Amino acid sequence: MPYQLHYWPGIQGRGEFVRLALEAAGADYVDVARAEGPGQGIGAMMHVIESADVLQPPFAPPFLVDGKVIVGQTAAILLYLGPRLGLVAKSEAQSLWTHQIQLTIADVVAEVHDTHHPVASGRYYEDQKPEAVARAGEFRRERLPKFLAWFEAVLARNPKGSTFLVGARLSYADLSLFQLVEGLHYAFPKAARRALKKAPRVQALHAHVARHPRVAAYLASERRIAFNEDGIFRAYPELDG
Amino acid sequence: MPYQLHYWPGIQGRGEFVRLALEAAGADYVDVARAEGPGQGIGAMMHVIESADVLQPPFAPPFLVDGKVIVGQTAAILLYLGPRLGLVAKSEAQSLWTHQIQLTIADVVAEVHDTHHPVASGRYYEDQKPEAVARAGEFRRERLPKFLAWFEAVLARNPKGSTFLVGARLSYADLSLFQLVEGLHYAFPKAARRALKKAPRVQALHAHVARHPRVAAYLASERRIAFNEDGIFRAYPELDG
Repeated sequence: MPYQLHYWPGIQGRGEFVRLALEAAGADYVDVARAEGPGQGIGAMMHVIESADVLQPPFAPPFLVDGKVIVGQTAAILLYLGPRLGLVAKSEAQSLWTHQIQLTIADVVAEVHDTHHPVASGRYYEDQKPEAVARAGEFRRERLPKFLAWFEAVLARNPKGSTFLVGARLSYADLSLFQLVEGLHYAFPKAARRALKKAPRVQALHAHVARHPRVAAYLASERRIAFNEDGIFRAYPELDG
Repeated sequence: MPYQLHYWPGIQGRGEFVRLALEAAGADYVDVARAEGPGQGIGAMMHVIESADVLQPPFAPPFLVDGKVIVGQTAAILLYLGPRLGLVAKSEAQSLWTHQIQLTIADVVAEVHDTHHPVASGRYYEDQKPEAVARAGEFRRERLPKFLAWFEAVLARNPKGSTFLVGARLSYADLSLFQLVEGLHYAFPKAARRALKKAPRVQALHAHVARHPRVAAYLASERRIAFNEDGIFRAYPELDG
């Protein structure tokens, strides 16, 4: 039975980190809210979130359904999928390290979201623009360089070389770091280019993942939603610099 | 060899979620940055973060050192400690569900932090007070009730009864939900009381954990740092209501 990925249609968002893992592994999956037909569509997604019959309800999309298992929280989904898709090392220490990196990527993603919604996630960007400009400035000046320096150090100190974050093979954390860099280039083209000059290993990893045959095929396909201003990474020129 | 917990001295912060697990299990541990003597103190903590010799450097405190293993990210630390301290079910499905709940608690904690630092985590609260008032209002009105309703539903739907979040025994997620409720009462006494009236199972869990003999002994000890305005949960009356 194919994996069911449930996420808002129309944006990459947090669902994209799961989608990239499924695509890179060549896994059989259905993107439920984007699919048509019986048991598909956004109604099917909302049913899982809202039905009192679901004993382990996800708080929010994305979530994964695999037979009777329902898993929410992006990092937890990847923790579950990693060994099944061959996208994480088998040892507990390496698996935990991969997860720790993933959680740090999730922290960056949350901070990127807050650059355009610093006051209220439920209100329009236009209603919190001055605060967004201030928060984005702090993110570009303080947070982005600090996070990238950490990823760079992780790559530099990998005893198996700097091609991958953990060990000598592709993991879901590499795919997520690729996606993070993609998003940074979209949302903060000037600041990202400047900051990434000091993180050559992160840049090389991004380029390496982009050349992965299944990832490259996915990125060129219609399954890859384009970045847009409903997602987490938004190209608002006033937030870059 | 005792576990080494590394966290900022002087605040509960994210370290408290780990501390509660260690205390509830009666584990042998050293609170390194608060300890004195050779190899202790805040210098020992900073060394792990800053030394280029650490191959798997944590991005930030808290982190745990267990022999050669170093684990950062609160939820990852609990994922590691859970089975070792008997604070999580053995089955993969239940363990993953516990972790998913923990990650959702982490999301609430991050949002609570942003109520007093919506614009810049590196700047003073006083310099972002109007934005904090706006963000805290959104948190109290929209986010807090939504999160508490979810925890209430998780308890209500637990097939083993509503005493614990997962199954019929205490897990690290129960301890963390206790701590979250403690913090909400401190930071938002009015809003928390109002919101918790609609979450009686969450209230009962909080009271139940507080009576756990080792937890109760810990809370009464000097090891429990008092809430204060350097931590994540801060009692700023203008942010409550």
